[in-house]
Amino acid sequence: MGLVFWAATFTVTARAQDKNVTEEILDILKEKGQITGEQYDELRKKAKEEREKQAGKDSEFEVYWKNGIRLDSRDEQFKIKIGGRIQVDWATLNADNDIDESFPDIEGSGVEFRRARLYVSGTIYDAIEFKAQYDFAGGDSDFRDVWISLKKIPIVGSIKAGHMKEPFSLEELTSSKYLTFLERALPIVFAPSWNTGLMIHNSALNKRMTWAVGVFEDTDDFGDSFNDFNDYNLAARMTGLPWYADGGTKLLHLGLSYSHQFRDEDDTTIRYRARPECHITDERLVDTGSIAVDDLDVINPELALVYGPLSLQAEYFHSFLDSDSADDPDFNGYYLFATYFLTGEHRNYKTSGGTFDRVKPKKNFSPTKGGWGAWEIGLRYSFLDLNDEGIKGGEEDNVTACLNWYLNPNTRLMLNYVHADLEDRAGVNDGDVNIFQARFQVDF
Amino acid sequence: MGLVFWAATFTVTARAQDKNVTEEILDILKEKGQITGEQYDELRKKAKEEREKQAGKDSEFEVYWKNGIRLDSRDEQFKIKIGGRIQVDWATLNADNDIDESFPDIEGSGVEFRRARLYVSGTIYDAIEFKAQYDFAGGDSDFRDVWISLKKIPIVGSIKAGHMKEPFSLEELTSSKYLTFLERALPIVFAPSWNTGLMIHNSALNKRMTWAVGVFEDTDDFGDSFNDFNDYNLAARMTGLPWYADGGTKLLHLGLSYSHQFRDEDDTTIRYRARPECHITDERLVDTGSIAVDDLDVINPELALVYGPLSLQAEYFHSFLDSDSADDPDFNGYYLFATYFLTGEHRNYKTSGGTFDRVKPKKNFSPTKGGWGAWEIGLRYSFLDLNDEGIKGGEEDNVTACLNWYLNPNTRLMLNYVHADLEDRAGVNDGDVNIFQARFQVDF
Amino acid sequence: MGLVFWAATFTVTARAQDKNVTEEILDILKEKGQITGEQYDELRKKAKEEREKQAGKDSEFEVYWKNGIRLDSRDEQFKIKIGGRIQVDWATLNADNDIDESFPDIEGSGVEFRRARLYVSGTIYDAIEFKAQYDFAGGDSDFRDVWISLKKIPIVGSIKAGHMKEPFSLEELTSSKYLTFLERALPIVFAPSWNTGLMIHNSALNKRMTWAVGVFEDTDDFGDSFNDFNDYNLAARMTGLPWYADGGTKLLHLGLSYSHQFRDEDDTTIRYRARPECHITDERLVDTGSIAVDDLDVINPELALVYGPLSLQAEYFHSFLDSDSADDPDFNGYYLFATYFLTGEHRNYKTSGGTFDRVKPKKNFSPTKGGWGAWEIGLRYSFLDLNDEGIKGGEEDNVTACLNWYLNPNTRLMLNYVHADLEDRAGVNDGDVNIFQARFQVDF
Repeated sequence: MGLVFWAATFTVTARAQDKNVTEEILDILKEKGQITGEQYDELRKKAKEEREKQAGKDSEFEVYWKNGIRLDSRDEQFKIKIGGRIQVDWATLNADNDIDESFPDIEGSGVEFRRARLYVSGTIYDAIEFKAQYDFAGGDSDFRDVWISLKKIPIVGSIKAGHMKEPFSLEELTSSKYLTFLERALPIVFAPSWNTGLMIHNSALNKRMTWAVGVFEDTDDFGDSFNDFNDYNLAARMTGLPWYADGGTKLLHLGLSYSHQFRDEDDTTIRYRARPECHITDERLVDTGSIAVDDLDVINPELALVYGPLSLQAEYFHSFLDSDSADDPDFNGYYLFATYFLTGEHRNYKTSGGTFDRVKPKKNFSPTKGGWGAWEIGLRYSFLDLNDEGIKGGEEDNVTACLNWYLNPNTRLMLNYVHADLEDRAGVNDGDVNIFQARFQVDF
Repeated sequence: MGLVFWAATFTVTARAQDKNVTEEILDILKEKGQITGEQYDELRKKAKEEREKQAGKDSEFEVYWKNGIRLDSRDEQFKIKIGGRIQVDWATLNADNDIDESFPDIEGSGVEFRRARLYVSGTIYDAIEFKAQYDFAGGDSDFRDVWISLKKIPIVGSIKAGHMKEPFSLEELTSSKYLTFLERALPIVFAPSWNTGLMIHNSALNKRMTWAVGVFEDTDDFGDSFNDFNDYNLAARMTGLPWYADGGTKLLHLGLSYSHQFRDEDDTTIRYRARPECHITDERLVDTGSIAVDDLDVINPELALVYGPLSLQAEYFHSFLDSDSADDPDFNGYYLFATYFLTGEHRNYKTSGGTFDRVKPKKNFSPTKGGWGAWEIGLRYSFLDLNDEGIKGGEEDNVTACLNWYLNPNTRLMLNYVHADLEDRAGVNDGDVNIFQARFQVDF
Repeated sequence: MGLVFWAATFTVTARAQDKNVTEEILDILKEKGQITGEQYDELRKKAKEEREKQAGKDSEFEVYWKNGIRLDSRDEQFKIKIGGRIQVDWATLNADNDIDESFPDIEGSGVEFRRARLYVSGTIYDAIEFKAQYDFAGGDSDFRDVWISLKKIPIVGSIKAGHMKEPFSLEELTSSKYLTFLERALPIVFAPSWNTGLMIHNSALNKRMTWAVGVFEDTDDFGDSFNDFNDYNLAARMTGLPWYADGGTKLLHLGLSYSHQFRDEDDTTIRYRARPECHITDERLVDTGSIAVDDLDVINPELALVYGPLSLQAEYFHSFLDSDSADDPDFNGYYLFATYFLTGEHRNYKTSGGTFDRVKPKKNFSPTKGGWGAWEIGLRYSFLDLNDEGIKGGEEDNVTACLNWYLNPNTRLMLNYVHADLEDRAGVNDGDVNIFQARFQVDF
């Protein structure tokens, strides 16, 4: 009896790999003489067909929602995402300056689709990653991440080629979907942003550190450049988490980015200028005009702290211009902000990228079930100094207050009040601008 | 025996919630001593795993075709659609006027992709609806419904923000996929069409009524406007079904739309002009030129009747211009048409929107199975009067005959003959234009 | 006993259509008295529900990866594909000519997204096929196959309307995804390529032959044309496989294409010119300038041989211009190339289209499992003569060497070295250009 028991157990175990329960029931029915050998053979064949049809092809996708539309193949070789984002903005701008025609004509109000993107991205054959994302805002098809990447390469991690952001600045690299304020802070003008090139990047020390380094051609919004050979950029970034506790609800992020930009032959100038943290105007309060340069360096230390619902973030930027024929001006800027979730959530951090990630409300907004989503308030101070060595592009500081309503992980309503203050720009009177702006955003 | 029977029935019923048939068979086999307790435990565990793997995640999508590609999550929180439309047109235009160079140079022939759209739309987290649709015809990315909406709000129904059609006119609001004729009727020039704004809309009385009201900025094809604050539109529409019988195969639709358009400061003019119900020409037979206005009102009563395969539809439009500095001209127009399905189908009506919907052939076209789809004939008369108070933009009437072949719910071939007659336009001889045009359309 | 056996077998067979194994097990258990009639009825009902839920709607899709994302409905009425391609190129060009300002200013280097496409295509209701593909490279939305097709039509096969390639030339009709070299050969300038029109096409003799014939309007990149009626193209192509062995690893392809192009009234000229098989320059080494023509004919014989890893391909093009007012120049060109797979794969041939298809590595590249993909080397010679009857557009020949790395069926890295040699162009010194270019490509 013990032997029979053992044999039965063994049988069940041995068969576990290639039979399902229905097939095993057939075995038992045959063993007990409830079915004939012919019935058994016939039904086993049919059951095998049913099982195989059920299992489907190895490359069959499970299609599901997880912060977006996802398709994962059962063999995990293929993972595809299809999605996009909509950001519709409304703003009203009001200048409060010594009445003077020299001041930028910034008054008015309007609506704008700030971003209107669609993308397909994914991993194929386990080894290749790609993203093809286009932004249709404004009517053309701006490239916004169109790249191919080799994954799982020893030491270097990923080798990515195509159109992507240069690895520089926490605020710049954090997706516009997850920004706390409508617009990035003033000194983000120093970040090289999207270009076409080659980058290697990886994380280390159990994802407590990330590093990335790349070489890029300075390209247009469609990733193209027919420039001369010598005009390219280098960028590098390293981040670390000296403190990371309670599943990421408490952390300290430190980072350092560096950019070297060659400006040779055809494209021998640089121009720094900035809108007053509002995109529904083409006027720039500060503007250096074109400056002749041979090359330039930008350094950018980063700092961020998350302590439950409270977070702090700050960055400093310093640009060193180098020119044979002129003085070498330096420009700089910085920002710092604090935010607090009234409803207890925290800013999410993405350890693989060293950037901030999607906020997930504790209870989603639902008019039928009564949830009210997450609510966040914040305050930012940003400063940009474009005056040096005879260049008088102006000094600007902005104070921004925000109220964000996260209806669910993919939808939010944002309100910003910006007070922008311009000083010391050549030929322009000092003055203030008051901006009230709102954004309704969904990503899918 | 009765008790055993009762117990057995009870057992089956009680278990119905958490076991599938295979699991219940295992119970029976154990009960009958056909399997050992060990076999039973092993197989029950395995069967449960199989069942759970089968059920999948709650947010897993069922992907299926229903007039398009649909992804519905099992928990009904997420419903996504991915699709688009292609309309490829061919036309030949022939002017028959007193030979005179004053007449628009409208002769010729050509092909055009009238619409070439892709979209992703859906409901997420049960509470938010969105649509992101872009039209690539002509090479740019025109916005054609890019909005976010809060659903299920008490009383107001939905609150929609973004780029959408202003609620005005049955013909304007009926999707171009479902139009009976290739082009909307002449007086549709009075409809404000797509703009960026905020709208609330709902249905009432068991979907026998709909209402919508919105405020909009007058925007470009990409939903953007940097105009002054005072330039905006109000629009409202209300529809009702005094008669709705036999599942919608018989109905009477009444509607009334109203539009108020402020034209202040930067944009102080209005211009009405119309192509002769053919898009493969840029010539307009009637044209008021620019008229200075402060603001204007348009009213638009709607009427439609469906009586099985027969349908009638008519609308009247009247625009009242208001200007401080000039006379206040009024313009108006109307159209009416009748259509008949030779194959017995009827025009479908969408009660939630108060518009017409997709036609479904009784038998789809199939070269292998022999179906021939649905066939519809129709006749339309439309009229537009752009002459008043010294403005002589001209009077035009068009007579259009159509033959529509619906191969299946998503594919159709349309043939239109248009006779357009121009009279009484300043500086232009009276004359006629004969147009023959065809469209092949698929939506997916 | 024999009768019982027969009956049992028969029963199993008869039931096979509408029961699954679990349902049949229930039958057996009832037959053997293991379950009561009540249990049986209850469980049969439940099993039927499970089976039907499982089977799902007829129109439910199986979603899986097969060289791309595919959705096939279980009833095979609907088959949808969603995908795209990314090609990111880098090139450096170096002229080696008698130093002279007459030579095109072709020196330099750059990056370019050569193609950046997204598409949705499919078959719906078994009878209609469509494709909607747009190329976002350069920022606009070029149409690249936007058509609707009636399938399975007796004799003619498919009737396709919309934007598509005219049926002309093996190299032109082979998708850019599967080209052996980065750019098509010089004489491809004679191919009419994409236009909007109507085409019928079919295969014959067990797919050993294909034929296609179409009429097209000469359109812009967005498929539109408002040209005069008399300006259109005719194109026809026929291909055959006199030898097709070992599952397509050995074959001989012969083809002949013919194009007639009317050039009347508005568009009375033709201009032939060519880049030196590199797209990261706008300079053309050869250029006829505009030539007045009434109409023109192009003939194009094709030849291709696959013998395992080795393949040969060659085409000749001859264009006959016809003009009332001038001499009638003829232009011609040809190319031939050989390629060899170092890793033993072969070029795939698509019998339904008479073109080349996707290469599938024997072992995909995997940094974790050690595969290295497929490696191919090739050499091409191409020649274009644009000199005749007083036209001196120049003669060019190019020699190109390639190394292709196919990481998997959907990803490849391509390296090309091109030596282009210009002779005998009016007003331009003879000279050479050396080009080194690379492409990283993924399609999904």
